[in-house]
Order: sequence, then C-alpha cells, then structure tokens
Amino acid sequence: MPDLTPDEFRRQGGAVLDWVARYRERLPALPVRPEVEPGSVRAGFGPLPEQPRPVEELLAELDRLVVPAGTNWQHPGFFGYFPANASLPSLLGDLLCGGLGAQGMLWSTSPACTEIEQALTDRLAAALGLDPGLTHGGGGGGVLQDTASSAALVVLLAALHRTSGGAWREDGVDGTERVYVTAETHSSLAKAVRVAGLGGRALRTVDTVPGTLAMSPSALAAALDADAAVGLRPVLVCATVGTTGTGAVDPVPEIAPLAAAHGAWLHVDAAWAGVAALCPEHRHLLDGVERADSFCTNAHKWLLTAFDASLLWVRDAVALPAALSITPEYLRDPASESGRVVDYRDWQVPLGRRFRALKLWAVLHAFGLEGLRSHIRDHVALAAELAARIEAAPGLALAAPPSLALVCLRADTGDPDADDEATRGLVDRVNSSGAALVTHTTVGGRHVLRVAIGSVATTRADVEALAALLGV
Amino acid sequence: MPDLTPDEFRRQGGAVLDWVARYRERLPALPVRPEVEPGSVRAGFGPLPEQPRPVEELLAELDRLVVPAGTNWQHPGFFGYFPANASLPSLLGDLLCGGLGAQGMLWSTSPACTEIEQALTDRLAAALGLDPGLTHGGGGGGVLQDTASSAALVVLLAALHRTSGGAWREDGVDGTERVYVTAETHSSLAKAVRVAGLGGRALRTVDTVPGTLAMSPSALAAALDADAAVGLRPVLVCATVGTTGTGAVDPVPEIAPLAAAHGAWLHVDAAWAGVAALCPEHRHLLDGVERADSFCTNAHKWLLTAFDASLLWVRDAVALPAALSITPEYLRDPASESGRVVDYRDWQVPLGRRFRALKLWAVLHAFGLEGLRSHIRDHVALAAELAARIEAAPGLALAAPPSLALVCLRADTGDPDADDEATRGLVDRVNSSGAALVTHTTVGGRHVLRVAIGSVATTRADVEALAALLGV
Repeated sequence: MPDLTPDEFRRQGGAVLDWVARYRERLPALPVRPEVEPGSVRAGFGPLPEQPRPVEELLAELDRLVVPAGTNWQHPGFFGYFPANASLPSLLGDLLCGGLGAQGMLWSTSPACTEIEQALTDRLAAALGLDPGLTHGGGGGGVLQDTASSAALVVLLAALHRTSGGAWREDGVDGTERVYVTAETHSSLAKAVRVAGLGGRALRTVDTVPGTLAMSPSALAAALDADAAVGLRPVLVCATVGTTGTGAVDPVPEIAPLAAAHGAWLHVDAAWAGVAALCPEHRHLLDGVERADSFCTNAHKWLLTAFDASLLWVRDAVALPAALSITPEYLRDPASESGRVVDYRDWQVPLGRRFRALKLWAVLHAFGLEGLRSHIRDHVALAAELAARIEAAPGLALAAPPSLALVCLRADTGDPDADDEATRGLVDRVNSSGAALVTHTTVGGRHVLRVAIGSVATTRADVEALAALLGV
Repeated sequence: MPDLTPDEFRRQGGAVLDWVARYRERLPALPVRPEVEPGSVRAGFGPLPEQPRPVEELLAELDRLVVPAGTNWQHPGFFGYFPANASLPSLLGDLLCGGLGAQGMLWSTSPACTEIEQALTDRLAAALGLDPGLTHGGGGGGVLQDTASSAALVVLLAALHRTSGGAWREDGVDGTERVYVTAETHSSLAKAVRVAGLGGRALRTVDTVPGTLAMSPSALAAALDADAAVGLRPVLVCATVGTTGTGAVDPVPEIAPLAAAHGAWLHVDAAWAGVAALCPEHRHLLDGVERADSFCTNAHKWLLTAFDASLLWVRDAVALPAALSITPEYLRDPASESGRVVDYRDWQVPLGRRFRALKLWAVLHAFGLEGLRSHIRDHVALAAELAARIEAAPGLALAAPPSLALVCLRADTGDPDADDEATRGLVDRVNSSGAALVTHTTVGGRHVLRVAIGSVATTRADVEALAALLGV
C-alpha cells in the first residue's frame, strides 16, 4: 500500500494546517482546563479502522473527543507549571524534520543532522554568553535532549564514570556515591539518582540560606567534607538557576569551587530561566557557569520551540561517549573510527534520534534573536507589574521575590492556616473560571499560588484578566 | 513579539508542505547516501539572525546545506539498518500534536493525551493478538516510549525494583543483579544495564543454539541456576523476536518458564518484527508473549509512524510507577491521588511528554489495518523473492535464513577470508552507486550484507535495482 501522493499530501496537509490555525484562533474562547471524568475519553474511542479513512474524519474525531478533554497548554491564559510554547514556526520546523525523516544516531547516518545541531548549539552558546569551553569548537559541545530530566541523567552517568576512574562501565555503582541538591531542586534529579542505581539514600539535600530558597554554600561545603571524611564519593552537585517552585537561583560562583575541590561534576540546571540570558540584563544569571561541567536550558519552555528540545552543553566532549558508547558490529563505521565526528547516540540514552535542531532553527529564523529577547522582556515586565499589584493588595502577599516572569503569592491574613485555605480557594477560583490556569507549590510549608507568565499568546490583557480574578 | 497569525501560518505552512512534497518526489533522483567531508556542514552554517527572516530563506538553506549532506532515510532504495518510515500521514499527525501543544506528564495535565494513548494501545494490542493481560483494561497497559532503548531501560528499572522486594528505590543496586541476553540482543540492553548502574559485569551473554542465532533455553537454564546457586539475583531476561543482525527469533515459550522460576522479569524485544503480528500468518511470532512481563515493538520502523513512537506493553500497571514515581508538591493533584487515572510520567524517565499517539492514530486512519498488513506482506514477499535469487546465484549465499523482510547474504567462494573481502566489496559497490543503501553485520565472525526491505516508498522496481547491483 503506497504512501499519500504528493498532491494528496498537499491537500490533506492544507486541511490539517487549517485545523491547527482555527484551533489556535478559538483558544481564547475555550476553557484552559476542561472538566473531564476519568475514563470518558477512552470510552469514546472507536475501533481501529480496517480500511483507510479520510483525514477529515480524524479531524472531526479531534473536535469530538480530544479538544473537549484536553488541557489547552497554548491558551493565552495558561500560567501553570511553566508554559511549554509550541510556537507556529516551530511546528513548521518539526514538519521539515519529519519530511526529511532522517536518523541522527551516528554522524554517518545523516551528517547534516549532526552538524546542524553542533553548529546551532555553538551559535546559541555565543548568543547566551556561555563560556566557549562549552562549545564544539572549544573542546566541549551542545546537544539536544528530549528533556532536562534526560539531560540530568546523562550528566550523572558521565560523572559516575569520571569519578570512578573509569571503573563504572564494568563494575557499576558501589554505594558510596553521593549527589547534592536542595529541597528546591527539580524532582528529575531524584529520579535520575534512582535510575542510575544509586538509590534515594545517595541524594544529599543541602540546606538553603535561611530566608532564601537558594543553596547554602557553607552547608554544601559541610556536606561534601562530611561525606568525604567517611569515604563517601561526591559525584555530582546540581545547582539550579531558576527553581521550579519559585525561580530561586543557587549561587553558582560560590558552589563551583566547592564541587571542584571534591572532584564532583557541577551541573547547572537552568531549564526554565536559562534562555533569559539572551537578554544582556539577565546574562548575570549564568555567572559561574564558566566553571560548570554542564549546563542545561529548555528551548521548549520559554524559547518558543515545541516540546521536546532541551539544550545541554558539556565542557568535555568525550565525557558522555566515554560513559555511554557501545558499538555493535552493525553500527561500526569508518567516520566514527576516524575520531573526526560526533556520534550523538553516545550523548544520550536512546539510540535513534530525530533532526530536532530544525524546529529550533525555524524559531530562530521566524523570530530572530531580537524577537526572542522582546518576548522574554515583555513577560518579565508584565510579571513585575503583577507583583507590584499583589504587594499593594490587602490580604495578599508575595511568597517569594518575583523571579523573571514567575510570581508566587499567597493569602496574607495573619493566620497561617487560614492563609493556606484562602490560597487554595484562590487557585480554585482562578482555575474554575476557565479563563486562566495557575498551579501551586509550597514555600516554608505554606500553600502558594504560582503565576508563570511565558506563553507566546499571552498579552497584557490576559494578565489583566488574571489580576482581576486574583482581585488585584 | 507575537506568534504567526493564522493566515501567515497557513501560507508558510503551505510552503513547507510543498517543500516536503517536492523533497519526497525527487528522492529517487538523489543518492541515498551523500559523500560528505566531516565539518563541511558546520562550516557552512551562518550566524543566527537578529531579525525575523522569511521561511523561504530557511527552505533555501535546507536545499543548500542540509539535503546535499543528509542521508535520505525515506529514499525507496534505503535498505540499511531497519527503515524508519516517516509516512506522510504520520507527519500530519505530528503536526496536530504540535498544534495542540499539550503536555501529557500527568493525566490531569491533559486527560485526552493520556486516554487516547491508553485506548490506542489497548486496541493495537488486540489487533496484534497480544494477551489481554497487557492492556489497560486487563491490569497492565501500553505506553509510547521514544525508543526501544528507553523501553528496555524502564522495564529493567521495574525489574530491579520488583526483584529487590522494594529495596531498590532507597538502597539502589547491590552488585548481585544479573541480566540475560545473547550476543544477538540489541546493544540497547547492554546500555540499559550500564545506565542502571549494574556495570557490564551484570550482563550474562547466553549461548545460542548451535547452528542458529536464537537463545538456547538449556544454556539460559544453566546460567540462571549457576548464578542463583552463588547468590546472584536474576533480574531480567530479554528475549528477542527478530534480532537486529539477522532477524533471529528467541524461543519465548521455552524461555518464559525459566525466567519465571527464578523470579526474573521477562522482556520481549520485538522492536522491528513485532508489528508483523498484525498479519495472522505472522502472529506465531508472539507465541509465548502471553507469559512475558513486557513486550516492545516500534511503530517508527515498519508501522509507518515517524520516529519516535516505540510501543511498550507491561503486564503489571503498577510496576513502572512503583519504581519511578516521585511527586513534588507542584505535581500533586487530586486525580492522581484518586488512583483512577494513569500518570504516564511514571512510566518513563523524562517528565514531559508529547501527544505521540496522534501520529500513530493518523497512520491507522490513513492506511487502515488492511493497508498496514498489505504493506508488510508486500515486503515479506519481495524479500522471499530476493532470497531465492541469492540462493540460486553462484558465488553468493544466504548468511542466515531470511526473516520476514530481512535478507542477509555474503560472498561464497569457499575461502572465508576472500569471502569477507568480497562481501565488503559488495557493500561498497551497492552503497557507492547512490541508488541503494545496505548495511553490514557479522554472523559467526564473518562479514555479512544486510538487506532490510521496509520503506513505504520501496517497490518491486527498487528491489530489482538492488538485485542488479548485487548481480543476481
């Protein structure tokens, strides 16, 4: 059975483009989060067709079954988690990726796929003001992972290999390894520690500086020293630039020498906030990264690139392959053995890989660096205005200093238990409106409402509407 | 800076659709594999634009920089590795995925994203003749992973957790774990064993039955018994249905009771061959899977779905969450705590996840199950014809029995070293023609040319052209 003819692809593709365009147009009229009874979508899913069916029927099924039961992440009123922008140019880049249908597991399986990714990550490193030592031209290099979770996992594996003196590949872990985070570090680090076979006991939760949510360098130093003194092995320190809860920033310049003194790998997780360094006024967020072993930021959050596109840079280009390379006969080839090329399968857990760089490249073409900077600046400015209104509002308080475009707030009546109840009520009020979606976290054990501004569709009017729902 | 307007998206999208359609049309005139000097693509990559640039410039860059340096995996003459079909309907499904831009990490973050995946994997399980115990309706369930590598990793983690009696999450691995494969098992298992912290020493390479490349049950039994006798812990047995090298099939019905007797998890990796079970005449490939703990097959190889879409089914719906679930405050929600929903982030390493089911659903709509069956049958028939011609040809021999649409051959002059040299020459002759691409493997230490028929674009004429290059 043959594939679509080119003309039929153009026709059906036009129908799909139109469906997507109409969906994006009508988003403001849809609730951000629908009410759905568990199991109802499954129950409405029909049998698989024996014979081909027209694409129009699939689109009708989407309208009937999917849209009413899907959370509208691209809605202008989406302020939950961190917005995961799937800008329209990035979809076109992804379509080109599928159109080429290349596999970039080895350089030789599609040289362009690998080299465009190398060139693009080198150029982006420069645009972010990253240390040249993190580029392919400088002995390290960038790579696109699916998520910051996977990025954290692979750098942990490289760190395990390096700190074991190379014994890890054959002998595995030995129970003495320790990994340093704070209570605010993303849960993907705890997951990576388990995946890597270290067990939860290997995770050291370092205190934050009192009154802040940022890692305490003196507490880190004490933890590293105490562990080393009893024969435990500091493997990796994860510093976060822009925590998920409140956007706190760990002091990388002070953390870096401590990690280095113990031979531990320093990973900087800036999944959300890192892309802000495109703006000179936010470049200071990356201070200290010039001493890190790896740095991660997600193009699929604030950089308008459809999930999945997590940017990871490492200082040592051979660290990941040293840990992860396995070459069966059917994957051996002269280019790899020449040492002149990068085989990205050795920089990740999966073997296969898409031409992900195309969607990021499409975004950079469509918006330009200046367009991306203004996107970030607009949201930071809107967040500052919202924060000021919350500070001025009776009965509300900021739960943490605003961080870039993230505002955390809570009810403030003087009675902490009543505050928690009121904050929960506020989250429910916003979310049940259908006009906006916010999520929650805790700060100091207290319930907090998070407003993460960052969707490309969000305008001042949407933030004003949210402010009205918050009563400010 | 706002996103594209809907009309601009339609216009630019039309240009991209047309580019993809033209690219696919001109594939037969392009070499499958270009000659590329390492570094040449990087050197030709320009600066990132400060200002927006029209999509036409991006498309021109693709024509200038990418197409001449990319391996054309969708070429009708692509017989290498296993073809990774990116059929045109699957691209449209992926475009819908991006259009919705939903995150399916939790049920609550987009109920439709999770439930369509549940429903689709349940229906596909039935279409493949899988045991109902592997469905969401039957206590287990299906999930889309990026790759079979990731699928193997997560089932290994679940197996580590289960066989440790639950100690693994906190204590990690202890060095007694063992994992059983053959020399023909995909390298992703060896990689998963390392990623999981077990080290290469945990991997037991079980002998194959003499004269075949399939796992020997008696050798497996001996290895399991020997390890258990000295206090080692059999964690996972991986049986392969359709090995990468030659398409060999491990005897799952005989392996299953051995794994069970030792409490080891039985994973069946049918990454390439499994989808053939859609055809009743190939359903026997899955004999014994009704006793497996997990089963994997890739929609992104022979099932025409653009990478990445690897189907994994597990028998115990709580096995993966038990090992992998970590819930920070900002991801807690009432639906998850009700126990009535699946949160797929706990079935995988990454947190975020796309609405991957859409591209598979689009393929099923566009081809129908009958269309997919005929796609598979056509290729199996073409492979049988090619194999017969090779058997009849002087100077050539089949290096292994043909398996579905995979044909392995070598030169056969009577002198093994001369044969290796001649086989290498044959691979080079085919690949330097530009008209076809084949890859190699070894069988019994001898060089072998693999012909993997499976691209949706491949017709009888393309196989005839390959046969001519092979001189048969």
